[in-house]
Amino acid sequence: MSTFTQPVSVPHLSGERFQVTYRIQGKDAPARAAALCIEQTVEFPADLLPAGDIPNHIVGHIESLTSTAPDVHHALISYPVEIAGTDLPQLLNVIFGNSSIKAGIRVERLDLPDSLLAHYRGPRYGVAGLRDLVGAEERPLLCTALKPMGLAPQALADLAYQFALGGIDLIKDDHGLADQAFCPYEERVARCAEAVTKANAETGRHCLYMPNLAGPFHLLESRAHYAKDAGAGGLMVCPGLLGMDTMRHLADDDRLALPIASHPALQGSFVVNADSGFAHAAWYGQLMRLAGADAVIFPNYGGRFGFSRDECAQIAEGCRLPMGHLKPSLPAPGGGMTLDRIPDMQRLYGDSVIYLIGGDLHRHEDGLVASARRFAASIGKS
Amino acid sequence: MSTFTQPVSVPHLSGERFQVTYRIQGKDAPARAAALCIEQTVEFPADLLPAGDIPNHIVGHIESLTSTAPDVHHALISYPVEIAGTDLPQLLNVIFGNSSIKAGIRVERLDLPDSLLAHYRGPRYGVAGLRDLVGAEERPLLCTALKPMGLAPQALADLAYQFALGGIDLIKDDHGLADQAFCPYEERVARCAEAVTKANAETGRHCLYMPNLAGPFHLLESRAHYAKDAGAGGLMVCPGLLGMDTMRHLADDDRLALPIASHPALQGSFVVNADSGFAHAAWYGQLMRLAGADAVIFPNYGGRFGFSRDECAQIAEGCRLPMGHLKPSLPAPGGGMTLDRIPDMQRLYGDSVIYLIGGDLHRHEDGLVASARRFAASIGKS
Repeated sequence: MSTFTQPVSVPHLSGERFQVTYRIQGKDAPARAAALCIEQTVEFPADLLPAGDIPNHIVGHIESLTSTAPDVHHALISYPVEIAGTDLPQLLNVIFGNSSIKAGIRVERLDLPDSLLAHYRGPRYGVAGLRDLVGAEERPLLCTALKPMGLAPQALADLAYQFALGGIDLIKDDHGLADQAFCPYEERVARCAEAVTKANAETGRHCLYMPNLAGPFHLLESRAHYAKDAGAGGLMVCPGLLGMDTMRHLADDDRLALPIASHPALQGSFVVNADSGFAHAAWYGQLMRLAGADAVIFPNYGGRFGFSRDECAQIAEGCRLPMGHLKPSLPAPGGGMTLDRIPDMQRLYGDSVIYLIGGDLHRHEDGLVASARRFAASIGKS
Repeated sequence: MSTFTQPVSVPHLSGERFQVTYRIQGKDAPARAAALCIEQTVEFPADLLPAGDIPNHIVGHIESLTSTAPDVHHALISYPVEIAGTDLPQLLNVIFGNSSIKAGIRVERLDLPDSLLAHYRGPRYGVAGLRDLVGAEERPLLCTALKPMGLAPQALADLAYQFALGGIDLIKDDHGLADQAFCPYEERVARCAEAVTKANAETGRHCLYMPNLAGPFHLLESRAHYAKDAGAGGLMVCPGLLGMDTMRHLADDDRLALPIASHPALQGSFVVNADSGFAHAAWYGQLMRLAGADAVIFPNYGGRFGFSRDECAQIAEGCRLPMGHLKPSLPAPGGGMTLDRIPDMQRLYGDSVIYLIGGDLHRHEDGLVASARRFAASIGKS
């Protein structure tokens, strides 16, 4: 027999539920879907649960289970909104905490009701706000990265100055620029912000410098504010390194109020296997928006990484699909991109995109300013 | 031609390097190992790099590349310690940031010199310290979880009291107990800590209550200290949900000074695919120790999850393998364990283990105290 002999009532349950679509690869989909309902909630032998609200409401419900291919099922499972509390870590926990450790299960899509989305601000600027900030109403935005690691702060600032003169909209640190003795965070951020401000004064443009927020837990907030005070126009955050809710916290900081670009470092394990982790649209689209990313950096198809064209299209779709009051994000495909790739990318992404070209801008005969100008000209509407 | 026409010197390079062993699955291992050296450092076209220290020292070096099976190679790659800075997020970034997004690459092992390990305290208590805290010099430790989600704080506290009376050493919240309207963090922690303190006063034992630290970024520190002030004897942290460096920060907090148990929620994607992510020993052993976990919870073989017996043995090995001044952690295999599994587990883990049995303790005819006592008796040395 069980410890629990009396039915249990659970207070504060509204009856409202959110839904997660899981892709289940392999045999026994009905049993595995039922196991998901337990694993993501009570994590307790079903026959030992107290009767009442716990089995009836707290445990996940299988809303539908459909076969989409041989040995592949989609299970739509609902959970009461109250078990996700009001914070992102616990929402992630309910969505995939323990089941992430089971092979052959993948989160395909989230459907979150307004009552749950009410706890999330999402992107502060979103597509329209980011366009306003850089003064680009309709065209794609242009982004590049300061690198290579090993350059001194002033050398990076010199690059930033030339990029900004040449018409780049967003200049971010390479994600490898952290806080290193040969390139300390504060000095780099101050020099690069200064350089971009100077270029903006000369061009009349509104290029944003977005430093890579790096460092230990206790310095993240002060470093973010340091960047703002130094003149940075945004922040790049690696939620895979710093924590998803760390990015959300920075995005929500009204005193900071900077646009946020998410970088995919250390997130690959969540998406590189088709049978586990998260679908590209759920991870790079839905979750990054929940966590406040105005721009979502990811590796484009046909570069150094293995994402397919279709997976990239899904990310772009995830960045804009309806999620209650959450603003859409701008997809920022990069990773070994070159100017000659732009026409094909434009066919896929249209104008709602940030083109991120890094190293290839350094391949030129006539200097970085001219190289950046060619980048701007390549999208035809600079 | 490149932007960089002059050689660049990089100051502050000691010449000391740390090493990462990568498993490369598939064709073209030499080219992919070379790509890793670039991707994890300068992320820049090799032919456009400035001459000098950047290609010579900053870029990774392939120290060895050996075939271990058909189409499988192990690449030992070294990086200068200075590029990892002094913080965990950047170390993780260098180890696997961008390459996590490439399929067929897995981190097998870290070899970190003392100069790099000097930035990390590691587990504050480690195996010996945790044994001292609970008063168990040689035997395995006993752990259980408070659940199911949906119970009220006082109901969970009643369970905790009985478990503690019955001789459990570590009583943790289930990781699904967060901060929910039906079970708020503060009330739960206060009631459960009180219950365990009361039981300890009756038994003379030193059972530790380890609440699941849950909540948004800005509340984590205050909630951790709230737990300590309420009488909690440790903390359970889910670094997959809260960020790896968040756990490290809490472990390093001298005012808090609580032992830390890491929980594997949302970490599965890093280990469930043999060809990507991290090897079990590197993830659950080496990284969790770097991030300060005194106890490392993971799913045991033969439970609800798919880890093999050998993978679990590797985790136990990773918890104790030499890492400079870092103390060893105690492996805490759980996930659907039952009393009858203990003899086989004891053969694998010996006495340096925490047995974590949750739901199964509720399957009894004579109450939770007796059930916990049977658990204690099953290890033969309680």
